[in-house]
Amino acid sequence: MSLVVIGTVAFDALETPFGKTDKIIGGAATYACLSASYSVKPVKLVAVVGDDFPQSDILLLEEHGADTEGLQIKQGEKSFFWSGKYSTDLNSRETLATELNVLADFDPVLPDSYQDCKYLMLGNLTPQIQRLVIQRLVNRPKLIVMDTMNFWMDVALEELKTTIEMVDVLSINDEEARQLSGEYSLVKAAKVIMGMGPKTLIIKKGEHGALLFCKKGNKAQMFYAPALPLEEVFDPTGAGDTFAGGFIGYLAATDDISFDNMKRAVIHGSAMASFCVEKFGTERLLNLTQEEIEAREQQFADLVNVPAVSVVE
Amino acid sequence: MSLVVIGTVAFDALETPFGKTDKIIGGAATYACLSASYSVKPVKLVAVVGDDFPQSDILLLEEHGADTEGLQIKQGEKSFFWSGKYSTDLNSRETLATELNVLADFDPVLPDSYQDCKYLMLGNLTPQIQRLVIQRLVNRPKLIVMDTMNFWMDVALEELKTTIEMVDVLSINDEEARQLSGEYSLVKAAKVIMGMGPKTLIIKKGEHGALLFCKKGNKAQMFYAPALPLEEVFDPTGAGDTFAGGFIGYLAATDDISFDNMKRAVIHGSAMASFCVEKFGTERLLNLTQEEIEAREQQFADLVNVPAVSVVE
Repeated sequence: MSLVVIGTVAFDALETPFGKTDKIIGGAATYACLSASYSVKPVKLVAVVGDDFPQSDILLLEEHGADTEGLQIKQGEKSFFWSGKYSTDLNSRETLATELNVLADFDPVLPDSYQDCKYLMLGNLTPQIQRLVIQRLVNRPKLIVMDTMNFWMDVALEELKTTIEMVDVLSINDEEARQLSGEYSLVKAAKVIMGMGPKTLIIKKGEHGALLFCKKGNKAQMFYAPALPLEEVFDPTGAGDTFAGGFIGYLAATDDISFDNMKRAVIHGSAMASFCVEKFGTERLLNLTQEEIEAREQQFADLVNVPAVSVVE
Repeated sequence: MSLVVIGTVAFDALETPFGKTDKIIGGAATYACLSASYSVKPVKLVAVVGDDFPQSDILLLEEHGADTEGLQIKQGEKSFFWSGKYSTDLNSRETLATELNVLADFDPVLPDSYQDCKYLMLGNLTPQIQRLVIQRLVNRPKLIVMDTMNFWMDVALEELKTTIEMVDVLSINDEEARQLSGEYSLVKAAKVIMGMGPKTLIIKKGEHGALLFCKKGNKAQMFYAPALPLEEVFDPTGAGDTFAGGFIGYLAATDDISFDNMKRAVIHGSAMASFCVEKFGTERLLNLTQEEIEAREQQFADLVNVPAVSVVE
């Protein structure tokens, strides 16, 4: 049940209506790795940073279960940096700065010890690099989950489609699903996208939850995971990656990729994401207990639970 | 379990990306009445139309269970008319025309036979008229459900608050909940609004479902009803009124206003609304079968159902 996660390990500088941060640890692989580590250890990390990346942050990842053999540290180079500012309602964000730095010529290295990979999480990166990771694994993993974003649909659609065709699960948000498929209805969008290759599609709808679609013959099975309405959302950064990491971590831990278990994995991922947004950056993901996670999952179950009717109508 | 519904009975002219209609029967009370009639009959209607309103449309309402003793027909006057055009994604609409006509001086008349009212649905109207109906009932109903819209928050906020204070359940959409409360978080918004009087709040989120909040001591119970993702939405007109009518109809039929039964009523209302949007205007609400409705409710249940874990993790 070896889990490999590839993606960015980076610096983020965030500004939300509730405050701002200097450079803090961020990146898709960081969030996914921390999130997955509550289900399964180690999480074998494939990423690249510059020599400006603090040893203490690498230690932090390792303490949380990351295997960093696949984390390249480029001497004399700087880590990927993203800076963004959220709108008052946190529903949109403006990119203030994107410095690719080490990411510009990232050549993912898969250590031999990663070749037992059974579950592969492709965090958001160029589709070419995501594909390279699949190709460099001698045996195809049991399950490949891929996250991506609208940027690649704009600038590298054909490359993106080539990679999408190779994966089992694609995880994108509702706007991205509409852009990729050209369909407004998410049911129709799901059919189009599952026609591109993936048997399973997750459409993330932020504060409105997530939809899970699985191909079954000519039909699609559908599952709706609500989001937990929260009093406070401090910082949405990393929520999608935390969701994806929680999702694949749960599947890797249970080693069951049935539709029913994917439903549970979606609830687990949603619970992890609901923690993520409660504090800045990765803060809330660093010290969760299993009890807190289970209690949160129970809240998700209670939220949609309708007791059986006891009166004759 | 007598149910009284007050609201508009009107003409609508609609334009959606899928086509346009001439003047067709519409209005909040029309949709709510048709929807409720699948649960309980008669639905005692309080509304006003002009003499341009076809007798055949009144007969249609009666055939579907409406008691029209409280429906005033104003000779020499014209019915309320609304015309609107939806955006390509159906998520926003532009009002092309609003002609108040008979609605301008609507004085709701409650026939004596309506005084047994146990469940009262106040469809969207001026808050003064909604309040007048409550005041004209000799005995307070067991449950008063009120629908309203942002327009009254803009032009008659204090009047609106006075009426809201008198009702048990308020049904509004997410933007309206934010406007009314001044809070972005729907959890916080719900607390503020339940502090205004209603013990129960329904926040409709359109294609993202609905939230049900019920006050319980100092805490709020919460329930999330998903919306059924649909392949085609032809016309969202009346969906909110259909939801509200289905909700109160279900409660009236079962005569149970517990939180658990309200959950079921929200699912039933959501199912009715999901039919409404499949065709233009009221068309889809005219010929539903109980089997179709139950099958749709089952789809809602299946959509969020997570089977118990059978393996040890």
